[in-house]
Amino acid sequence: MSVYLDHAATAPLRAEARDAWLEATEAVGNASSVHASGQQARRMLEDARERLAVVLDCEPIEIVLTSGGTEAINLALKGLWWARPAGRDAVVLPDGEHHATLDAVEWLRTHEGAVVAPVALDAHARILPERLEAVLAGAPAAFATALVANNEAGTINDAAALARVAAGKNVPLHLDAVAAFGHVPLSFRTWRGAHDGPSGLVALSVSGHKVGAPVGTGALVVARSAGLVPLLHGGGQQRGLRAGTQDVAGATALAVAAELAERERAAETRRLRALRDRLIAGVRAGIPEAVLLGDPADRLPGNVHLHLPGAAGESLLYLLDMAGIAVSTGSACQAGVAEPSHVVMAMGRDERTARQVLRITLGRTTVDADVDALLTALPAAYRQIAGR
Amino acid sequence: MSVYLDHAATAPLRAEARDAWLEATEAVGNASSVHASGQQARRMLEDARERLAVVLDCEPIEIVLTSGGTEAINLALKGLWWARPAGRDAVVLPDGEHHATLDAVEWLRTHEGAVVAPVALDAHARILPERLEAVLAGAPAAFATALVANNEAGTINDAAALARVAAGKNVPLHLDAVAAFGHVPLSFRTWRGAHDGPSGLVALSVSGHKVGAPVGTGALVVARSAGLVPLLHGGGQQRGLRAGTQDVAGATALAVAAELAERERAAETRRLRALRDRLIAGVRAGIPEAVLLGDPADRLPGNVHLHLPGAAGESLLYLLDMAGIAVSTGSACQAGVAEPSHVVMAMGRDERTARQVLRITLGRTTVDADVDALLTALPAAYRQIAGR
Repeated sequence: MSVYLDHAATAPLRAEARDAWLEATEAVGNASSVHASGQQARRMLEDARERLAVVLDCEPIEIVLTSGGTEAINLALKGLWWARPAGRDAVVLPDGEHHATLDAVEWLRTHEGAVVAPVALDAHARILPERLEAVLAGAPAAFATALVANNEAGTINDAAALARVAAGKNVPLHLDAVAAFGHVPLSFRTWRGAHDGPSGLVALSVSGHKVGAPVGTGALVVARSAGLVPLLHGGGQQRGLRAGTQDVAGATALAVAAELAERERAAETRRLRALRDRLIAGVRAGIPEAVLLGDPADRLPGNVHLHLPGAAGESLLYLLDMAGIAVSTGSACQAGVAEPSHVVMAMGRDERTARQVLRITLGRTTVDADVDALLTALPAAYRQIAGR
Repeated sequence: MSVYLDHAATAPLRAEARDAWLEATEAVGNASSVHASGQQARRMLEDARERLAVVLDCEPIEIVLTSGGTEAINLALKGLWWARPAGRDAVVLPDGEHHATLDAVEWLRTHEGAVVAPVALDAHARILPERLEAVLAGAPAAFATALVANNEAGTINDAAALARVAAGKNVPLHLDAVAAFGHVPLSFRTWRGAHDGPSGLVALSVSGHKVGAPVGTGALVVARSAGLVPLLHGGGQQRGLRAGTQDVAGATALAVAAELAERERAAETRRLRALRDRLIAGVRAGIPEAVLLGDPADRLPGNVHLHLPGAAGESLLYLLDMAGIAVSTGSACQAGVAEPSHVVMAMGRDERTARQVLRITLGRTTVDADVDALLTALPAAYRQIAGR
């Protein structure tokens, strides 16, 4: 039996989401069609939108369904860029963001003339609101972006404080909630606050497959007063912000998975924290050199981010894989390229350290035996590679 | 029982595609992960890509999986625009293209400074190669785009001839094969010809749900030598042309549906043509004023596009819907807005005519009884509205 400890890369599809998908595909109809079949599809779609809006605490009309987190992030960043007021050419970018954000901003820089204003993280990969504020004070920004929780280090930011800072500086803020979704309470309404203009929190992205919905589902919450230029033009679907035949079955499955994740969140947080803390304690007992990266307290309940001095992450990953255990050296989206983790370097560590990290992420299907398997295999693998 | 005659809007999910989707979702793994779960996902993905490549007659590496036709079209058009050589600011756009194309080009015009060079259709909604050639001769084009088959009129263009013209003029061509997919033999290799540069046919878009794959699946075939700037930046998946966690289950279902559609195509074409011709003959018998629009010979086997003088399309659609019959006035992607059909006007008809059209599209699940139901209901509905 294989041990899957890479839930941050992708999580198993929930049976309830699968069943909802299946049921929705029984109905035939394009939600944009006028006839009864189309209207039935539209009702199912709007029902899914309403249910997802409850989980994200936003209005249904604010939800723009996308093909996943990467599309949601690209839509937010490029859409805000293209909609910016004249003269606001800075993009406020914390270090250590996900590659979808980094690469989209890099394109805005090289292709569209954006001036990147970086925000340094603290040693735990945290985005400090005062640093965001200082950067915003120094640059006329088209927008700022920030992770709600870091997908590698697991550190949970103070999203409410970051949103207040952006609102205070009259700059639109996008929050990347992909890694946080299902693990951290998300409230678009609360974070946005009383604010009702095109600044402060205006967009928040989530991905379905991180919470047990099908791959290929996701959403960008977009405040009604936010100006945003679409990435996909066409038939005017979704307030004109995202054209394309709407995926009713995917939306329904996403809503079901999101509801379940939210319902289970409190109990699951306790359960995962206990497993995680046992895993951390066990690793430290077996490998005294191991260092836990990221915030020791405010971290995703299923995240263990380790520096293992003297052992290349890829080598550890390989030996663990041979032992039937799946972990990661960082984001799966870095696609098999053996690069040092930019998140670890953003925490002020050197490149060597950034190559000696493992990300172990627990999730809904993780049980004690999975932790036991890792605690058996990892110290041996570490000694074999580090030669200690 | 409802009668569904709007297969061009969306087709029922095939049971085999559904089952393949289900089976693929049993496996957990991100195709970009290095470990065994990830590699298994990657193998399934590459298998799907290879099977789809056989159907589209291209190389597997040329297939960029997207969330559907709209994304594929937007990626092709904007990607070719951003990658254009300096000074080539014209976009060659036939009249009567799908809204995904029209709206993407309109954005390129208003936002990016593109100069639109239109190509007039003939009276049957056909794009004449000689007209394309004349327009290409007069404008330094970033790219040209063309429908393989018109989604409203059903007219099938000579894609090979259009591709030869583009190659001869050294202009990259995108073919929108969304409506043609499953009904017309598509051969990227043949249409591209011996050509191996960044011009001629370089991109071809298809959508999954038109052939019985899940909504939210699709692909853009991109020639290896084509320069194309991605719409979605991120983890470098798919040759860097389309970032985002790859939808293994969706790709597998798309491959299965595409293979089945291709396998059944010859027999299904004969079957649909017989049903369609009986429908056309029956409509003419019941409504002598009815005029068949689009090419009488080279048309999609399941397409019936009718001008019904004196009767607003929406009113007919409404009465037929009351009788349990689903048809369309045009593209579903025009999202319920009662606009005259731009395709009908592109055929040289006036606006009044463009409001008096019905698109009846037959497909895999259509049977004789469906045709009978329409032939019973339509003449009565017509007489009621047109007052004849």
